Amino acid sequence: MKRKIQIFNPEKEKIAIGLLSGTSVDGIDAVLIMMKGSGTNTKIKVLDFETYKIPIRIKNKILINSNNTTARIEDICRLNVIIGELFASAALKLCHKNNIKPSSVDFLGSHGQTIHHLPALKPYEGFKVKSTLQIGDPSIIANITGITSIGDFRIADCASGGDGAPLVPFLDYILFRSKNTNRGLLNIGGIANITVLPKACDKDKVIAFDTGPGNMLIDGLMRRFYNKPYDKDSKIALSGKTIKLLFDFLVHDKQYRQRPPKSTGREYYGTEFLNKISRIARISKKEDVIRTVTEFTAFTISYNYKKFILPKVKLDEVVVSGGGSYNPVLMNSLKNYMPKVKIKKMDSNGISAESKEAVLFAVLANECLCGNPASMRSVTGAKKDSILGKICLAYNEE
Amino acid sequence: MKRKIQIFNPEKEKIAIGLLSGTSVDGIDAVLIMMKGSGTNTKIKVLDFETYKIPIRIKNKILINSNNTTARIEDICRLNVIIGELFASAALKLCHKNNIKPSSVDFLGSHGQTIHHLPALKPYEGFKVKSTLQIGDPSIIANITGITSIGDFRIADCASGGDGAPLVPFLDYILFRSKNTNRGLLNIGGIANITVLPKACDKDKVIAFDTGPGNMLIDGLMRRFYNKPYDKDSKIALSGKTIKLLFDFLVHDKQYRQRPPKSTGREYYGTEFLNKISRIARISKKEDVIRTVTEFTAFTISYNYKKFILPKVKLDEVVVSGGGSYNPVLMNSLKNYMPKVKIKKMDSNGISAESKEAVLFAVLANECLCGNPASMRSVTGAKKDSILGKICLAYNEE
Repeated sequence: MKRKIQIFNPEKEKIAIGLLSGTSVDGIDAVLIMMKGSGTNTKIKVLDFETYKIPIRIKNKILINSNNTTARIEDICRLNVIIGELFASAALKLCHKNNIKPSSVDFLGSHGQTIHHLPALKPYEGFKVKSTLQIGDPSIIANITGITSIGDFRIADCASGGDGAPLVPFLDYILFRSKNTNRGLLNIGGIANITVLPKACDKDKVIAFDTGPGNMLIDGLMRRFYNKPYDKDSKIALSGKTIKLLFDFLVHDKQYRQRPPKSTGREYYGTEFLNKISRIARISKKEDVIRTVTEFTAFTISYNYKKFILPKVKLDEVVVSGGGSYNPVLMNSLKNYMPKVKIKKMDSNGISAESKEAVLFAVLANECLCGNPASMRSVTGAKKDSILGKICLAYNEE
Repeated sequence: MKRKIQIFNPEKEKIAIGLLSGTSVDGIDAVLIMMKGSGTNTKIKVLDFETYKIPIRIKNKILINSNNTTARIEDICRLNVIIGELFASAALKLCHKNNIKPSSVDFLGSHGQTIHHLPALKPYEGFKVKSTLQIGDPSIIANITGITSIGDFRIADCASGGDGAPLVPFLDYILFRSKNTNRGLLNIGGIANITVLPKACDKDKVIAFDTGPGNMLIDGLMRRFYNKPYDKDSKIALSGKTIKLLFDFLVHDKQYRQRPPKSTGREYYGTEFLNKISRIARISKKEDVIRTVTEFTAFTISYNYKKFILPKVKLDEVVVSGGGSYNPVLMNSLKNYMPKVKIKKMDSNGISAESKEAVLFAVLANECLCGNPASMRSVTGAKKDSILGKICLAYNEE
């Protein structure tokens, strides 16, 4: 039996940074935390959270290079370094803002930028693999910041037949499990995902999966129709009404109705899907289209609850995080579709809705350095546990 | 000042594996070694070396996906996992062949498969970066083999403005530096590179750069003309003669005449370059074309010696490794072009010509785990030193 490699003593109090850019490429979320312990004993205190801009030309290049017909390897090769530089710069700015020397930070965890996600076991040249691709190289981050950087958390799980997603359930499990409440944690980013934590559950009883689109359809159409990144305070959706024909078309789509475990990438709800919506709604008012996809997004979440969760666990409450929690129409639709469940925003529960995913990557980095497997087999479908992440040491000349 | 992170005690005797697939995608080189120490105190004993086949369909996909016009992100995403699986399988086969349990191997170092290399500082969307892209994910290798895997050694150097290549000079420096001899180490893989070790030099005095094509042009045309992977024992070249027109055209190409530090990727001597040769030599005999590119390959090496090395160091000997050392026409041409230098094959000097590069990646993995920077600033042009590689821990359930 091999000895366990443990780079850090988990009992030491550590300063860590978590970094993330989501599928909607809205910006780099960076969180500064104090932490202690590991696994279910992890204690976290958020010191600061900030979102740093990604230059619009780079954002566009990322979107172009996430698409199978428009991606170019020269761009991917360069973007891997450039996104690494942007992430490094975000970490350094966060240190500077908080008057903390980068050399005092024990480590950082970076999700990087997903540019492709292929969880389906499709035959390919005699092989059958699941795969996922994140860029924003952690070696670049480590060498620019001088901070030990851990990145690329998803792919290890693919080695054991897992989807490499979702990763959030691990954080949900260690932070939000309750002794007395059947709790759901719903994160509405580009894609929406839910984690179900039955009261007093252990790790193998956690259910989690992507429910379907989060803000992707809304944001994609806001860009198309209004050249705006998102529907601020759902003002556009509020001024529109649901188009029955379009709603029926969307409801009949099969993707969101798949049985879990499942994960959804940017691929499915990308340009092609938006083109279909635009075609069907070509004579409709733009605000009505936005309203309809907002309603549809809430519907897919409630559908997944009723079909795949309710038969096993009746939820007492659902705590919502991510950009979607700031969309009142989306939140109200959720309440209408799920009247028996208390729907509330994450902020009311400690770690803010905004910072949650960034915190996750600091926590996952800690697990990696402590030699703990943070994979969730019951969620990703992996056949065995894995230590997630790649460790990039920084060389600080003495 | 931060403490140095050192995962392994360098003084312990370790069993390690080195893995590599070169730009010509000939197969996966795997070496099993015993080693002790680190840096210039590294002691190595090669236990076994083997080359494992890459399925032809995957080889072709790698070549297609190294090219900017034919690469597709879906393929790259899947190949990253598949090549990881192939590398893992090579490591496991090597263990099995040698009756060694994978759990007894302390670590492995994997170069992966380069699919793109962009060392030029070209402006790109407001940024200017050097970059390089290797696939064959080390997290996949770690999780399949259960062996701590270190990979992705090049990119850290790009963070400090280095080319991320060549890496071989580090091994050359610790293994082949001589007290009394000005020695050159020439590796002829897909691309040819030379390391110059002035007698009794220290690390900053090492000169090393890619001289230009290694076997790429010969192999590329062998595939085109004869559907064969290479010119075995240079039989084809031996039956042909040099075409002056083509030779003159090649000699006037600028790439190989660039001033070092420089590194050359598969990009330059790829399909487009072969197309040019085919056009110019369209009425020539095939064997004459093979002869000519073989002569030209030797010429580029001697040109680089005379132009960029001789003014600084007069070499006493050049030790040749890599596939090109088995090409008698290439070796004889080298002797003709460089009559005052003793040209000899690597085998005569301990570690075999074949296993050298694979040994390098085990050595680099060891440096990474010992927290030592293995970057060579004087060679890659980097502004500071880096610890090369990403560490992927394997989880072995107890």
